[in-house]
Amino acid sequence: MCWQRERCCFRRCKQGVSTGQPIIVLVKPQLGENIGKAARAMLNFGLTEMRIVDPRDGWPNPSAGPIAAGADLVLEQAQVFETTAEAVADCSHVYATTVRKRGMTKEVLTPADAAGEMTAASGKCAILFGPERSGLEVVDVELARKIITVPINPDFGSLNLAQAVILVAYELSKLDHSNVQPTIEKKISEPAPQIELDRLYEHLERALEDTGYFYPPDRAPATKITLRNMMTKPAWTNEEVQTLRGVLSSFERPYPKK
Amino acid sequence: MCWQRERCCFRRCKQGVSTGQPIIVLVKPQLGENIGKAARAMLNFGLTEMRIVDPRDGWPNPSAGPIAAGADLVLEQAQVFETTAEAVADCSHVYATTVRKRGMTKEVLTPADAAGEMTAASGKCAILFGPERSGLEVVDVELARKIITVPINPDFGSLNLAQAVILVAYELSKLDHSNVQPTIEKKISEPAPQIELDRLYEHLERALEDTGYFYPPDRAPATKITLRNMMTKPAWTNEEVQTLRGVLSSFERPYPKK
Repeated sequence: MCWQRERCCFRRCKQGVSTGQPIIVLVKPQLGENIGKAARAMLNFGLTEMRIVDPRDGWPNPSAGPIAAGADLVLEQAQVFETTAEAVADCSHVYATTVRKRGMTKEVLTPADAAGEMTAASGKCAILFGPERSGLEVVDVELARKIITVPINPDFGSLNLAQAVILVAYELSKLDHSNVQPTIEKKISEPAPQIELDRLYEHLERALEDTGYFYPPDRAPATKITLRNMMTKPAWTNEEVQTLRGVLSSFERPYPKK
Repeated sequence: MCWQRERCCFRRCKQGVSTGQPIIVLVKPQLGENIGKAARAMLNFGLTEMRIVDPRDGWPNPSAGPIAAGADLVLEQAQVFETTAEAVADCSHVYATTVRKRGMTKEVLTPADAAGEMTAASGKCAILFGPERSGLEVVDVELARKIITVPINPDFGSLNLAQAVILVAYELSKLDHSNVQPTIEKKISEPAPQIELDRLYEHLERALEDTGYFYPPDRAPATKITLRNMMTKPAWTNEEVQTLRGVLSSFERPYPKK
């Protein structure tokens, strides 16, 4: 499954068509606000399929909308289930996010490793996130094939629901190679070719000769090496090189004082 | 610098000892709650050094504490500065987080790439995060050597402050077990701290004022932004900065012709 190629087409979801993306399953979430934040975190990284298991305050929950900050699409399409088992019935790969050790023999993955697996997997993937206060219960973790654990500061391990969701969504998004920076930007910041740096350096040396900078003469060669190294270090663009040449010209020939 | 090895010893921070970790700089944050959430996100991944520039509601802010959920250590030790320049004066590597294109020629990195760089870097690293509503201003981005952009859903790009912080902190934390060792060469070529770049830029601007370079006056502000960006780009060492200041002095006061 390569859901990433579908990512930018998440509008398809509006028509109720599955995107093939991993599904975020919130198990017994408590606060509507946190469901809204999770929706926002998902959409930040292009995920749109949310399933909710037995939400404490029912569904729809009016507290979820405002905090979703525009991610209403995710909330509107969220499906609600009575049990976790029903929520993942059609999924081939179920992952449980948990920080606590469960005495289980399931494989534990980082979000990055899990994202890699899900991207390569065939069949639907689901990721379970537990209630805010207590996390997933053993019966839910049991359903999962593998465990995802965010490697967190062992002395300060409280990651909230939306943060856990965003880290997993972010890792999934990183594997979407269609989302690379536009090349135009790279072209703008392309470093000047070496010949422009040579000309800049020659200009600098010429301008400095006139000031007596290279005195005494026996130290001039080392100084010139230093200066040339400095000019090649920045990877300045053509425009920047021209700006610096303007600076040098200004030092060489100051405008008459007004 | 290998701050990772210090990570688990973040209690040292309680005694006011710098950890050598990257510093999270919140520029003009608006809500105390968001400062608290950022502190929590930091500590989740073992970061403890926060600096705050010109917080809208002053500091300390009673709204920050409750939401920090135990990350009071970070808040208690947070240092407050009037300007961004002062906040990063002792830092050798300054990164600006921004999603908007600024028409700048700075290199744009993902959080993962930036984390890799910071982990291998010698000298203090700082990461700038802008105000919740508007993001970093151009004058702040100018100070940075490089830009960090989270590759986000282009159709839903609103990442809140704490989420941006947690993604960067998470990427730094992932490199915790990295075996990257700073080499002697790297130590020698440690970039000059930001305050030296500020002085260099001020020297350049002063020297150029005398030449009439900034004529006509209405174009001066844009030209100055370009020049300042050029000075932050190269990661020049202290020695290189001093060399360049010698160059400027030589232009200002040429030696008498022999």
